[in-house]
Amino acid sequence: MMDNRPIGIFDSGVGGLTVYRAIKRRLPCEKMIYLGDTARIPYGTRSPSTVKRYAYQDAAFLVKQGVKLLVVACNTISSVALRLLQSSYDVPIVGVIEPGAKAAVRSTRNGRVGVIATEATVESRAYELAIKNLDAEVEVFSQACPLFVPLAEEGWLEHDATALIARHYLEPLIDAGVDTLVLGCTHYPLLRRTIQKIMGEEVMLLDSGECVAAEIGQVLKKTAEGEAAIEDDVFYVTDSGNRFRRIANLFLDNPIGRLIAVDIWEEKVQFDEGGLGLLQEAFRKG
Amino acid sequence: MMDNRPIGIFDSGVGGLTVYRAIKRRLPCEKMIYLGDTARIPYGTRSPSTVKRYAYQDAAFLVKQGVKLLVVACNTISSVALRLLQSSYDVPIVGVIEPGAKAAVRSTRNGRVGVIATEATVESRAYELAIKNLDAEVEVFSQACPLFVPLAEEGWLEHDATALIARHYLEPLIDAGVDTLVLGCTHYPLLRRTIQKIMGEEVMLLDSGECVAAEIGQVLKKTAEGEAAIEDDVFYVTDSGNRFRRIANLFLDNPIGRLIAVDIWEEKVQFDEGGLGLLQEAFRKG
Repeated sequence: MMDNRPIGIFDSGVGGLTVYRAIKRRLPCEKMIYLGDTARIPYGTRSPSTVKRYAYQDAAFLVKQGVKLLVVACNTISSVALRLLQSSYDVPIVGVIEPGAKAAVRSTRNGRVGVIATEATVESRAYELAIKNLDAEVEVFSQACPLFVPLAEEGWLEHDATALIARHYLEPLIDAGVDTLVLGCTHYPLLRRTIQKIMGEEVMLLDSGECVAAEIGQVLKKTAEGEAAIEDDVFYVTDSGNRFRRIANLFLDNPIGRLIAVDIWEEKVQFDEGGLGLLQEAFRKG
Repeated sequence: MMDNRPIGIFDSGVGGLTVYRAIKRRLPCEKMIYLGDTARIPYGTRSPSTVKRYAYQDAAFLVKQGVKLLVVACNTISSVALRLLQSSYDVPIVGVIEPGAKAAVRSTRNGRVGVIATEATVESRAYELAIKNLDAEVEVFSQACPLFVPLAEEGWLEHDATALIARHYLEPLIDAGVDTLVLGCTHYPLLRRTIQKIMGEEVMLLDSGECVAAEIGQVLKKTAEGEAAIEDDVFYVTDSGNRFRRIANLFLDNPIGRLIAVDIWEEKVQFDEGGLGLLQEAFRKG
């Protein structure tokens, strides 16, 4: 029996398109629905409780579309909110941290792994904990690279300024002698060439999108062999799509097709934490 | 009669602190309430209808605090939403565009004015229209500098990478021979030294915060001569305050005192435009 329901995938914006692309390459027959919460991007510098609230609403929107699997195509959300989402919704939910951590443990020869990510992901220590959980001997060196996302989104992928900034961020990891570097933010694969040049060719760079695509291939192995879906994939954004469409061209080989702006804020937030939350409780009562 | 009510001032985040600082220097006796919508920063890359919705809620929060004057300490909001706000609330509302445009027209000798700002401000053509309205002869050259905000917030104020990026953005304005440059984003005064070095010492840089402070001094001239307010100013943010407090140290001479996290999203949005909006109508009915 084929399960023709789509895979849902979401991110705070365009970054998750690197994950989308990786899944599409591995599972071309799967129909996908993408949500980018472009009205509230970036998540990477926000507090955990705000990220949870936003992620809860993002996921609710896709669950309602009847997806068979939900991919959290964002390291920040995966670090901070994956457990909340998994306990809130019945559909299987896959994040990017676990697959990246597994690949890092498999890859390292000297037991020294670097992780570059947003501030929120680094502060959550999610990669460090996931890697240590798999192999307590592996040493993890983490570095937040907050300027990488705007540089990637502006298309400054191999500019001299980008190289200077990358050198500043990466030097501590070079000094630490890591042989494996997790690109722990879905934007970073765009800067791959610059990062590889600075780290040196002998360091293995791991793209969390590729890691999660492999994992999904396993989860869905029975449904991945059907005929190619006829329908085009659908992309939803929460703000005007012009910027999304423009930046998407940096991420994907082909221009995106159907792009639809939606409101997702009417979703009731069912948890409360750290003084924020529950603000939209009144909605359903009204 | 002294009017002891506070001045309300808001921005999408920390950028408005350069305006706050300029007003505080000129009117030290005025009590001020600052709101930074840090949960939804940045506004500068969002669509006009989203900026309007957010600005409406920001202003509502401050109007409820009983402010006597509202300062829109953000060029993007001033460009896109000032008229909406002025028609929605009874309190006098001052934006940063008009004061900056006036100062530019007064400053230029050769009739060639440059404006650097966010994408949203440049696309709105607000400075261009305001300057042309004052003097149709003045030529305006605008340039979006989207990487300046993250560079300023990360404290990369005079790094070599910042200089390379600034040169890339500013070269067209140097080629155009502008003698006056409006820093049309409240973050940009932090990069003033780098910008001045690249533009040359003979180009006049105008800080919109300083321009608006002068304007407010005129609006409030009767209340500006009282005794110094005893109470400390209050700063509200819509996300956790840690990042705000840290970055605020780049903007202000002294650390900020009272910092309070608030929810502002329960505010009913009373306008609809471009397919978004009205999403929270249900609230008050409930």
